[in-house]
Amino acid sequence: LRLGHRLPRDERISTHVALVARAFGANSIVYSGQHDSGLEDSVKRICEQWGGNVDGKQFAIAYEKNAIKLIKKRKTDGYTILHLTMYGLSLNDKEKNPLEKIKNHEIKNKKLLIVVGSEQVPGEVYKLADYNISVTNQPHSEVAALAIVLDRLQQGRELDENWNDFQGKIKIEPKENGKKIIENKKDETNKK
Amino acid sequence: LRLGHRLPRDERISTHVALVARAFGANSIVYSGQHDSGLEDSVKRICEQWGGNVDGKQFAIAYEKNAIKLIKKRKTDGYTILHLTMYGLSLNDKEKNPLEKIKNHEIKNKKLLIVVGSEQVPGEVYKLADYNISVTNQPHSEVAALAIVLDRLQQGRELDENWNDFQGKIKIEPKENGKKIIENKKDETNKK
Repeated sequence: LRLGHRLPRDERISTHVALVARAFGANSIVYSGQHDSGLEDSVKRICEQWGGNVDGKQFAIAYEKNAIKLIKKRKTDGYTILHLTMYGLSLNDKEKNPLEKIKNHEIKNKKLLIVVGSEQVPGEVYKLADYNISVTNQPHSEVAALAIVLDRLQQGRELDENWNDFQGKIKIEPKENGKKIIENKKDETNKK
Repeated sequence: LRLGHRLPRDERISTHVALVARAFGANSIVYSGQHDSGLEDSVKRICEQWGGNVDGKQFAIAYEKNAIKLIKKRKTDGYTILHLTMYGLSLNDKEKNPLEKIKNHEIKNKKLLIVVGSEQVPGEVYKLADYNISVTNQPHSEVAALAIVLDRLQQGRELDENWNDFQGKIKIEPKENGKKIIENKKDETNKK
């Protein structure tokens, strides 16, 4: 959940948040704040080109006007709410760090809602969250915070995903030097 | 080194790249592309407020018109050039992954230049780089890629930095719930 999207200020930051969510293994993103069909189109275009399926489903982007309502709904549905905030306890806090627990439970059951904010996060979000966690207590970026947390939760395994099953039109073959873009043959087969 | 900064498109993304660099332990950022005093002012303002010293030096932001010249200069000075690109070898590539080597050598000697691109990175950058490394081969964000690599290089220790020596005006006391901002007493002492 990306809170408080503002136009035009957050256009690219929210896009980066969405693309990090997708590339690091989330199955969807919801955003609140101002509705932005340009943001939704950008994300859908990337999914079409590069593939967007997780567990056989398309990576989804949805708008929710009332973020608090969404968080409450997810809590009722048994989700754990992890709010990333520079004011929270350190991700490295050995005693209170929830990541170990989350790794073993919520990730497996896909019942984790990660919340990242914009400039002013309503106080209610802190109260509703099961965990308020900081990725450093310094100002930096919700894009970076989300990436670090998704990476830690999956112990880096998300980088090994080869995206062969994701039915995109193109993919990259990793190279030591230069660029190699290949057409996804599986996608070609599916088209026929 | 943040390549190819474009106005107004990259204003906030480049700011996030700079703030991630600072928060995750880099001692400076250089950017190329369009000169942007607004970007420089934003970063300097953050350093003033939150502290910006690494090894007793202010976290620095500088503009360099000719990025290729800068990369060549750093190579001559003995720096390792790590170019983050979605086309590169995976950060998880066990055989060719340079991170172990970098961890033990370049980080200690502070001779590492990490390069992150914008949309079109000149081919010469790939050739000049000692390593072209990808943080997934999917499109996402240079902000996230930089954070993940700085986190891995330091094995997460950068999150334990308490910023007491950084002489900022304010700092945050981590809390399970809500916000606590405290004035930096060391800073007060320094002022007297």
